[in-house]
Amino acid sequence: MSVVVVGSVALDSVETPFGKRDESLGGSATYFSYAAGFFTDVKLVGVVGEDFPQKHLDLLKKKKIDLSGLQVVPGQTFRWAGSYEGSLNEAKTLGTHLNVFETFAPSLPEKYKSADCVFLANIDPDLQLGVLRQMKRPKLVAADTMNLWISIKKPRVKELCRQIDVLVINDGEARQLSDCSNLIQAGRRIRSWGPKYVVIKKGEHGVLLFSPKDVFCVPAFPLEEVFDPTGAGDTFAGGFIGYLNKNNNKLNDTLVRKALYYGTVLASFNVEKFSLERLKTIKSSDINNRFKKLLRKTSI
Amino acid sequence: MSVVVVGSVALDSVETPFGKRDESLGGSATYFSYAAGFFTDVKLVGVVGEDFPQKHLDLLKKKKIDLSGLQVVPGQTFRWAGSYEGSLNEAKTLGTHLNVFETFAPSLPEKYKSADCVFLANIDPDLQLGVLRQMKRPKLVAADTMNLWISIKKPRVKELCRQIDVLVINDGEARQLSDCSNLIQAGRRIRSWGPKYVVIKKGEHGVLLFSPKDVFCVPAFPLEEVFDPTGAGDTFAGGFIGYLNKNNNKLNDTLVRKALYYGTVLASFNVEKFSLERLKTIKSSDINNRFKKLLRKTSI
Repeated sequence: MSVVVVGSVALDSVETPFGKRDESLGGSATYFSYAAGFFTDVKLVGVVGEDFPQKHLDLLKKKKIDLSGLQVVPGQTFRWAGSYEGSLNEAKTLGTHLNVFETFAPSLPEKYKSADCVFLANIDPDLQLGVLRQMKRPKLVAADTMNLWISIKKPRVKELCRQIDVLVINDGEARQLSDCSNLIQAGRRIRSWGPKYVVIKKGEHGVLLFSPKDVFCVPAFPLEEVFDPTGAGDTFAGGFIGYLNKNNNKLNDTLVRKALYYGTVLASFNVEKFSLERLKTIKSSDINNRFKKLLRKTSI
Repeated sequence: MSVVVVGSVALDSVETPFGKRDESLGGSATYFSYAAGFFTDVKLVGVVGEDFPQKHLDLLKKKKIDLSGLQVVPGQTFRWAGSYEGSLNEAKTLGTHLNVFETFAPSLPEKYKSADCVFLANIDPDLQLGVLRQMKRPKLVAADTMNLWISIKKPRVKELCRQIDVLVINDGEARQLSDCSNLIQAGRRIRSWGPKYVVIKKGEHGVLLFSPKDVFCVPAFPLEEVFDPTGAGDTFAGGFIGYLNKNNNKLNDTLVRKALYYGTVLASFNVEKFSLERLKTIKSSDINNRFKKLLRKTSI
């Protein structure tokens, strides 16, 4: 069992009411990998510049993430800068420098191609579809997307939907993609285009799952202190897909629901510190304990 | 077992993207009464003007709501006008005419005073405290409040907190009352002032419960069509408190959680039509069926 993840590896500069970090480790593939790494083997596909700090590579290697698909090319690593205010619900982007990520052409090492699961983080849908073509019939294909691609390449995002099992997007993207302001209608419409399961992330309000049978609701883990929400969505996806991969990629309501709880738990740890600082400190037992707590907080 | 509710009885003019209604039946005590009436005997305390339509009184009487505490006085009934746009999350108030409600002095009929439960809807905290003084040791005291009273009478709202068992407020009010932007901190701080249970309503995102032991999360019932959210919070409170009263006002986590589910179910029916139009059409079996559906949508 292993998951291939394709996405960004970045250096993030983030400011929240609780502090700031300059050029800390970030990126969708990074957060996803680290979270999924608690459950299964992860093979990362991405690109960084020659300036990418060795300590970040060491951290990912220590987590046993396969980095043979991480290209290191001349130039600068992707950089993002943003800030959060008030209740930390929305990032204000202060700067995006794609750098080497602008010409990223994902190329899978041979040994990646037979992985049984792939997560396509929010890169250009044409690149996502290109990655799928390189894979040898993975059992579970999941993807994310973002407002930019929905704005400029909606037909390709819909084509992606036809080819995947699970779509994981946030509430604003779901509304934009479906042209429905009501989220329940939005989820059902997107599901009708192909994905067996659609997961809509609502930040501090949790997630909605659209399955073949029902709509399922998972609240976020209630936290007294949210430090930095950067990467929460990708960390959630990592816990969610990592758990499904660990369980033979089976897609039934019970397993998918449990997987959503694990994703929620991973995301809740992530937001307690900047970057991967909190995730670095937790063990599987911490995850399982918080999973049980979340169950207690949501059961009669 | 019976619940006394003190609050507004109003004529609402509401416009949503789905239509409009002029001077339809509304008010916190109205919505609360009708919802609680599915579970227990309700005794209403309020005031209307001589212009209040007989058909509205007939509707409440048909639901066996005791109206002997509803004063009918010379003048006009309280009128509210508002509109909702987009995802219907927030009402835009177009007009508030307190009329006879401005000088409302709640006076409990003798037979009300020994009721075992009272719900103090969002009127002036001094009036709420005055109602409590008229009651003979009710077993369960619950209250709501609103931004206006928190702004101009916060010490009295805190005094109210000291004298009640359950506080039911929305997220914005909880932040304002506690001076905490984080809702979990807000709920815990308010609970420390007195109420054994604090319920924070988050509209379409459900509710949070702060109990002596834990924080509990209930999502809203997922609906494809939300028609008019007016009165959802009071309908929720009616289902919630009505169910607790029916169960001997016992306050333990299991019963309170079940009661929150019933409140959520009642609110979900309420928003499907204007005014009380949907609530008028449902039976206890509809409530129990949706309760079971909500359980399925929130259990692994």
